[in-house]
Amino acid sequence: MRHVSESERLALAALTRVAEPGEVAMVALVDQLGAEEVVRAIRAGTLPSDKLPAYAARLRAAHPEVDLVHVARRAGRLVCPGDLEWPTQLDDLGAQRPLALWVRGAVDLRQGAVRSVSMVGSRAATGYGEHVAGEMAAVIAERGWTVVSGAAYGIDSAAHRGALAVEGVTVAVLACGVDVAYPRSNAALLERIAAEGAIVSELAPGCSVTRPRFLARNRVIAALTRGTVVVEAAVRSGARTTAKHAVDLGRHLMVVPGPVTSAASAGCHVMLREYAGAAQLVTDGAEVLDLVGSVGDDLALPRRGPETVDDGLDADTRQVKEALPKRRAAPVDRIALKAGLHVPRVLASLAALETAGLAERVGDYWRLARPIDEVSDAARTP
Amino acid sequence: MRHVSESERLALAALTRVAEPGEVAMVALVDQLGAEEVVRAIRAGTLPSDKLPAYAARLRAAHPEVDLVHVARRAGRLVCPGDLEWPTQLDDLGAQRPLALWVRGAVDLRQGAVRSVSMVGSRAATGYGEHVAGEMAAVIAERGWTVVSGAAYGIDSAAHRGALAVEGVTVAVLACGVDVAYPRSNAALLERIAAEGAIVSELAPGCSVTRPRFLARNRVIAALTRGTVVVEAAVRSGARTTAKHAVDLGRHLMVVPGPVTSAASAGCHVMLREYAGAAQLVTDGAEVLDLVGSVGDDLALPRRGPETVDDGLDADTRQVKEALPKRRAAPVDRIALKAGLHVPRVLASLAALETAGLAERVGDYWRLARPIDEVSDAARTP
Repeated sequence: MRHVSESERLALAALTRVAEPGEVAMVALVDQLGAEEVVRAIRAGTLPSDKLPAYAARLRAAHPEVDLVHVARRAGRLVCPGDLEWPTQLDDLGAQRPLALWVRGAVDLRQGAVRSVSMVGSRAATGYGEHVAGEMAAVIAERGWTVVSGAAYGIDSAAHRGALAVEGVTVAVLACGVDVAYPRSNAALLERIAAEGAIVSELAPGCSVTRPRFLARNRVIAALTRGTVVVEAAVRSGARTTAKHAVDLGRHLMVVPGPVTSAASAGCHVMLREYAGAAQLVTDGAEVLDLVGSVGDDLALPRRGPETVDDGLDADTRQVKEALPKRRAAPVDRIALKAGLHVPRVLASLAALETAGLAERVGDYWRLARPIDEVSDAARTP
Repeated sequence: MRHVSESERLALAALTRVAEPGEVAMVALVDQLGAEEVVRAIRAGTLPSDKLPAYAARLRAAHPEVDLVHVARRAGRLVCPGDLEWPTQLDDLGAQRPLALWVRGAVDLRQGAVRSVSMVGSRAATGYGEHVAGEMAAVIAERGWTVVSGAAYGIDSAAHRGALAVEGVTVAVLACGVDVAYPRSNAALLERIAAEGAIVSELAPGCSVTRPRFLARNRVIAALTRGTVVVEAAVRSGARTTAKHAVDLGRHLMVVPGPVTSAASAGCHVMLREYAGAAQLVTDGAEVLDLVGSVGDDLALPRRGPETVDDGLDADTRQVKEALPKRRAAPVDRIALKAGLHVPRVLASLAALETAGLAERVGDYWRLARPIDEVSDAARTP
């Protein structure tokens, strides 16, 4: 663990205002020269970058000491690579990694993100999508996993709320400053997330959202977590970029299907078709934890229908049971004819059925022990 | 093509009443001795089978000449292996193949089944499932493909009706005699299927349904077609046995997802999870035809969202566009600061944006050429 000096932290704070998220050239320069030297070189006009004029202009407008104090008043700090709180899984992004992360909140980001799942989806979510996202997030959070999302309307909000509802931990990764309430009407939700979880951004305080920032933010959501769940996504949706990052990073990509008649699920179905090998269809929180959890831990139970009484019977005995009359009892040879079996085998089966309480003897005749509804969907138990 | 003699046809007609569907031992005996010799051996009590007494009793009750005449009066016939009308793809079943098929209807079974898809699913279907099955069947039938199903309530009926609605060909494979209306309230539908398509069964006329017969019937549905589409299926459902047969036979297995909150789709989701490699998620008829159709034929168009104006722009120009004020125009250096780019690059991007009709010059100042709604779901076009 490398010690981050205060001057380095100040330099990184300044650079979060100078460079846009995901600018690999800037990360490469910081790796090569160190953040303090990059700042000096921008001021001196000697940084080897074609963006130097823009960097210089932005640096002149930067006041990192003010930013650090401003954020500290809101339970915030700048988490830098090398800090104990730095989530090292972000290093999987290579030169696409954030320079540093502004964090506001009660939760230690590294601790909180060790066992975490992101849930993303459409802003224009349906009641179905919000319901499923909320339920899944609650199950995931209840099992001690952190739910990471983007605090947008729709699926994001439902995921955060689902985790908060069970007093779980949730983390919002923003495409604006950690002190900016965007979307504005999610201000109260954002404050709750900060109070009980964490709000994270690679952008300096006060920065506003832009479309490229949304897209760059999605790589952080994917990298921070062990897997990404997409709940509803239109064919053209930001959630698909998060999904792509998850696959590229070797994280689990989990997708919730929906009605094929719903445009809000169309992007999910495209992903399940296109990423056939890489995307997993999931239907509940337990299946999500089954994928991201350690082996033997957090396992989903395989889905089984209710056992039917026929399950324990061999094929011939099932055949005999089918041949039994429902009401008026029949002689053994007539049952044997109907079942297509010879009499000794039928007698053995009848004995087994009687023991199981399924056949009833009336003198020398036999019938079903209880009435069965007309032959119906094999899905139903008799 | 082997000629089927009338005495052989009579013998096979009798055996469809003697053996249960899918009795591999009977098929093996017919392959070995010939159908006429098997009938003789049953009568003589010399057939090497532990089911001989049952076979003999059933044979005594069989009247194959009567059956053939009875069915012929209903536009029916017994199609035997070797007949021109025999669908040779059933031979993929090996010893599980039907002995012969009773067919009623206007359509030649072999011709009708060359390009065919089966659609199966829950009897207890929802409005969603019936709607999707009907629409898919209509698209498939409209493109000249035959829709094969089982004439049950729910998905089966919706599939048949969808094909009939576009005057397409549909085939019902029954688990009872071709002259038996089961379920009874589908009698009118069955008569329409017979009039415009075909009704098929390996059971002799008058035979009634049993659960083993339903399960055995499903292998014929799977084998007859190039692929099986499951629309809705409970976790425990007969449709899953059809799906299993399709996979085992190397046919396409296609599954329609649904809401994860719907028990009627739970079996579909289990299949998509369990047969991850073998099952394909499909959302419409075109995707089905894409899978079962010949290469270059019946292809589904890949789903794409609407193109956005941003699609043709490079990353820097998109960044500049994001930095443009919506209303009050700004000088180039302020836009460059906001975009994090140097002025010459910004000027080049502004020229490109102006050409694309996206930026507007106001004296030396610039703004967006038209108002854009607040930053919204990437799914929407600006």
